[in-house]
Amino acid sequence: MVRSGATEQTDARRPVGRRGGAADTRRDILAAAREQFARGYNGASMRAIARDAKVDPSLIVQFFGGKDGLFIATIAEALRPGEELDAVLRGGRGNLGPRLARWFFGLWEDPARRYPIQAVLLSAASHPTAEQLLRRFITEEVVSRVAGASPRKNARLWAELAGSHLIGTALVRYVYKIPPLSEMPTAKLAKTVGEVLDGYLGTAAARS
Amino acid sequence: MVRSGATEQTDARRPVGRRGGAADTRRDILAAAREQFARGYNGASMRAIARDAKVDPSLIVQFFGGKDGLFIATIAEALRPGEELDAVLRGGRGNLGPRLARWFFGLWEDPARRYPIQAVLLSAASHPTAEQLLRRFITEEVVSRVAGASPRKNARLWAELAGSHLIGTALVRYVYKIPPLSEMPTAKLAKTVGEVLDGYLGTAAARS
Repeated sequence: MVRSGATEQTDARRPVGRRGGAADTRRDILAAAREQFARGYNGASMRAIARDAKVDPSLIVQFFGGKDGLFIATIAEALRPGEELDAVLRGGRGNLGPRLARWFFGLWEDPARRYPIQAVLLSAASHPTAEQLLRRFITEEVVSRVAGASPRKNARLWAELAGSHLIGTALVRYVYKIPPLSEMPTAKLAKTVGEVLDGYLGTAAARS
Repeated sequence: MVRSGATEQTDARRPVGRRGGAADTRRDILAAAREQFARGYNGASMRAIARDAKVDPSLIVQFFGGKDGLFIATIAEALRPGEELDAVLRGGRGNLGPRLARWFFGLWEDPARRYPIQAVLLSAASHPTAEQLLRRFITEEVVSRVAGASPRKNARLWAELAGSHLIGTALVRYVYKIPPLSEMPTAKLAKTVGEVLDGYLGTAAARS
């Protein structure tokens, strides 16, 4: 698993200040990072993130280990694979495709999660380090989890095909907003795309 | 159909110079535009495009009508829907999905076409004008064509779902390069994804 550097520090290590706690500081840093990463990986400045979050730059290093760790934490915070994806997968193989699709499109319908995902995808498309970080995160945190739910051989490949469909559909629907796909009710879209995901994952006929 | 402003000028209107002809000038401008649009729609400067293409800025307006027209021409030049996509569609409904997928992935395997497509997708994800131009182009030049080959009701929706799968898979494979999808032989990938496209388009069982 990718070390996200996102573990919260204990209060003992937190500098005294006006803040409510380490969780608030972490949240403020992530919010500032999201804005900065929207300018691309290179465009994001640690100094600007510290300024926007109203923290000392050394705190970012302490919380996230540096720019790479902060980038990973931005993805992790938006996708939450260890919490939400795992919860979807724990629901078993029955109807897994539509449930995965509903969860994924739900992320894109929440601006607080959609913009970080968009920022990360854009950064990774234009900077090799960000590309590498995204690849590692998707492989280790997302594909491996979904593959674990598939009974097929080469499950990672099928999981990735399923994921690639979801990403493309989210882009067309939420970023490029191309009708009629952008106007389709989410539940209907999740059912339609979900059937294809079940086909890829070999989970269509199975009932857990 | 979108007016691309990409029609070549007659030689009579071409300024006298060292160039071979209007087609060369056009190609040089498009090559420079591709580099500039890689910086995003806002980042692309008409002045810099003229400088890189070694032409007078007024020539860009004359050839492409301005920045919007140049953006559309960049997409059109990379995708060539009126030539290549039409040729694929003229092949009939039999095996249409795999043929569409092979054509689309082939674009991404040619750097001269992949980078403009990437630049356009990135620009459109970060600038409203570029987003609007891309949306119009995809709707009028791509979705309408593919929908015309589908016997299904709501064919535009199915065509868009098919297209969204292709875009996502191309991103995961060629931009983010996530294995094992990035390492799958193209012919096998086109067959696998193509079957899903045929399912969406209702062209799987049909033989023209």
